[in-house]
Amino acid sequence: MKPSIPKGTRDFSPQEMVRRNYIFDTIKQVFQLYGFLPIETPAMENMETLMGKYGEEGDRLIFKILNSGDYLEKSKIQSPKFEELDYKKFTSEISEKALRYDLTVPFARYVVQHQNEITFPFKRYQIQPVWRADRPQKGRYREFYQCDADVIGSNSLVNEVELVQIMDEVFRRLNIPVIIKFNNRKILNGIVELAGISLDKINFILEAIDEFDKINRDIALDKLIDKGFNEEQINKLKNILYQLMDDVHPNMDDLTENVFIKALDKIFYQKSEIGSKGVIEINEINKVLKLLFGNRIHMMSGLISKEPSQSYNINVKQEDRIYLHNDISLARGLNYYTGSIFEVKVDKSRCKSEFTSSICGGGRYDDLTGIFGLPNVSGVGISFGADRIYDVLNELNLFPESVSASTKLLFVTFGETEQNYCLPLLAKVRKAGINSEIYPDAKAKMKKQMSYADDKKIPFVAIVGSDEMNNGLLSLKNMTSGEQTKATIDTIIETLK
Amino acid sequence: MKPSIPKGTRDFSPQEMVRRNYIFDTIKQVFQLYGFLPIETPAMENMETLMGKYGEEGDRLIFKILNSGDYLEKSKIQSPKFEELDYKKFTSEISEKALRYDLTVPFARYVVQHQNEITFPFKRYQIQPVWRADRPQKGRYREFYQCDADVIGSNSLVNEVELVQIMDEVFRRLNIPVIIKFNNRKILNGIVELAGISLDKINFILEAIDEFDKINRDIALDKLIDKGFNEEQINKLKNILYQLMDDVHPNMDDLTENVFIKALDKIFYQKSEIGSKGVIEINEINKVLKLLFGNRIHMMSGLISKEPSQSYNINVKQEDRIYLHNDISLARGLNYYTGSIFEVKVDKSRCKSEFTSSICGGGRYDDLTGIFGLPNVSGVGISFGADRIYDVLNELNLFPESVSASTKLLFVTFGETEQNYCLPLLAKVRKAGINSEIYPDAKAKMKKQMSYADDKKIPFVAIVGSDEMNNGLLSLKNMTSGEQTKATIDTIIETLK
Repeated sequence: MKPSIPKGTRDFSPQEMVRRNYIFDTIKQVFQLYGFLPIETPAMENMETLMGKYGEEGDRLIFKILNSGDYLEKSKIQSPKFEELDYKKFTSEISEKALRYDLTVPFARYVVQHQNEITFPFKRYQIQPVWRADRPQKGRYREFYQCDADVIGSNSLVNEVELVQIMDEVFRRLNIPVIIKFNNRKILNGIVELAGISLDKINFILEAIDEFDKINRDIALDKLIDKGFNEEQINKLKNILYQLMDDVHPNMDDLTENVFIKALDKIFYQKSEIGSKGVIEINEINKVLKLLFGNRIHMMSGLISKEPSQSYNINVKQEDRIYLHNDISLARGLNYYTGSIFEVKVDKSRCKSEFTSSICGGGRYDDLTGIFGLPNVSGVGISFGADRIYDVLNELNLFPESVSASTKLLFVTFGETEQNYCLPLLAKVRKAGINSEIYPDAKAKMKKQMSYADDKKIPFVAIVGSDEMNNGLLSLKNMTSGEQTKATIDTIIETLK
Repeated sequence: MKPSIPKGTRDFSPQEMVRRNYIFDTIKQVFQLYGFLPIETPAMENMETLMGKYGEEGDRLIFKILNSGDYLEKSKIQSPKFEELDYKKFTSEISEKALRYDLTVPFARYVVQHQNEITFPFKRYQIQPVWRADRPQKGRYREFYQCDADVIGSNSLVNEVELVQIMDEVFRRLNIPVIIKFNNRKILNGIVELAGISLDKINFILEAIDEFDKINRDIALDKLIDKGFNEEQINKLKNILYQLMDDVHPNMDDLTENVFIKALDKIFYQKSEIGSKGVIEINEINKVLKLLFGNRIHMMSGLISKEPSQSYNINVKQEDRIYLHNDISLARGLNYYTGSIFEVKVDKSRCKSEFTSSICGGGRYDDLTGIFGLPNVSGVGISFGADRIYDVLNELNLFPESVSASTKLLFVTFGETEQNYCLPLLAKVRKAGINSEIYPDAKAKMKKQMSYADDKKIPFVAIVGSDEMNNGLLSLKNMTSGEQTKATIDTIIETLK
């Protein structure tokens, strides 16, 4: 039997772990810099906590855990015919627990369950794996980590701005050039309202807008006929959307005077309250961003990306800029968003990347905890896609050299006497806080010990034979340069510290 | 519906998380200091990887995952009568995956699966949750973390010594006074051999020895009649064990001349090869321990703990000593151990603890990967019980103060103007690497903002009103002392750095 693991899951080798931890640690440090604190929830939740929260497709993709013991005996099913059993109904009899599908729903459950112990606004982050019974394919796994930060219990748009700062800071530290896209669901709601379409059909429009990247916009919108839209509604939609796409050129000299925002405002004025509210929110966020980033902001606006006027931020170095895109075509899938939405993409104009998926996203949800009995608590959050970030760092060769090594020094010896001589020296090196090892099998050949150091990418090796023992000068070999010197253990410690 | 989580599982609040991370980080740092590198394996393994590895009881306690989709349709069961279904057989039809039960078996699977990519000896650590469908009770959970370090592919006893050093170092850093117990399964095997008992009955003797703590040793051994032992065997056993318990007094002046070891050696000499081998191994480990720790070693030997002679390590401060107990009654449950075994207990003679369970344990297994088709690869490892260590630190009030706080500074403002004034200052504080926040809702009452700082244990608060904005001197309040001073933002950064 050749051992294997379930499809869609992965083992992580030491080298992969060290690189993954570089990503997680960077994200954690920035979260903490902004006052977010960690929580963890169990891998398994009660079935009723998860079911019905992710749509029908989601329900199907949740991994269910079999009740323990003789679950057939314990089930309430009374001697049915086996071939007449309905597997969905049967599942509810033999399974009470399931693996979490994301971190947001367990977080909402956590907030409601612990509401009396929590100080609001509650700024939490959570980095844990989630499980989905999706068909595995390149870049899509059945077990993967999410890295979420959310603020719950505060309506202030300062939270949105801080999340933008966090996204900027994380990718700045990781050296990935990105564009941070943002939009507001209220603007999308306003557009629906103006076109005379009922709110429950908004997802069809969002899907059509999502397709603007791929197919002709007329075709994308005309297809809405199939979804029960009439011609008048579709024409109204085209009228609004095309106006925003074609007629508006950003004026970047003053973000608060952004003509794109002004055009939107004019479209909604006295016609859609929710649309106007969305404009006010975006405007407010733009104002605070300007206060914080000044002329470092490189802003694109519109339904499709438009370059800002060249006069803007001309004196700011490219690497100091923050690239924002106020993108009205940004919809994002999740139903529960009600205000701001965010998405981060690799900026291909600044690096050679083939990566098209978003690597971070999020938004505001006005009533996430309502489903668990705590209504009217607003939250806003973002989620980093660690696996995708890993792929981007790999593609762009951006993992720092130093993260691939951990042990700094290996003692190589020629026998038991030498090993016994080295063990107290090794203890001394470790006491100085230097990660170090001795090759455990004293009789192993020199070549074997050296190739161990090579494979583990250990940068320094101390070779100890009888000469070294006699005069207390160890042979220190730099494995990168090949250079070899004689040094006392104290000098070695000083060198490696 | 009041939301809840499955019994035996837990949510971890920010305060608990920070404390748990203190434990995990300490263990990780020491693992890395000794050249161990992290790996991770998937939460779910194929059913055949786990089943049959933990005994019948273990098989029952493994959480099984229901196949996705219409698993009834896909199963090969042909229209049986529902009431005649055998749940174990049925399970194998509707479930192919299960949650990992420990970290050792997935590690063995990992080593075999990736043997061509691994450089041996392979020193890996792994800190991940495991799941067991045990009946939940105080201190026993259905989801808990294990922290394992193993060396695989090296027979050298230096590995054993390094694991002892790691156990000592971890608990030294955590300030928990402990006794590190060790024994060797070969010695237990030798005893069985001398008493003329077949090896497959060793577990009954181990169980009896385990009971010496609780009941009279005669009673414990006489009960072996029920397990198919005859009187002669039991008398031989008593003869050997009592000799070791009663007649041996340790002579601590020279560990290599330990009379306990000598007595053991005499018992086995030319009578039990495996027993003699165990003595050689323990002797060898003692020798290297003496080389490393010298007279810092506080050694107890025997079947029950015997105090060492008082003359030993009299000049060594108590906190510098390493407390070892060469305990022949130490058996440990797991079947796959074949050489050294370890266990760490809180030393109640040096602290006021009620804690009796072991908080760390491990041992050598000569053929763990054999079950997956890679025979003759020896490994040795230890596992720290993070949950139990948490309880001990809590009981002894040993969590450092500083681990409960994370944010260092909160900006408290009186309105939007003040908030806009503070946002760039906050960015400056964060740029200096100081974890800090602003209360997001600018119109919140001062009292509410201050109690937010209190609840979150934020040590400093910067209060900003119109005075502060006019002269650039912020009011900095030390939340511990209550002291309030005026300072520029640069001074505040200097203070908090």
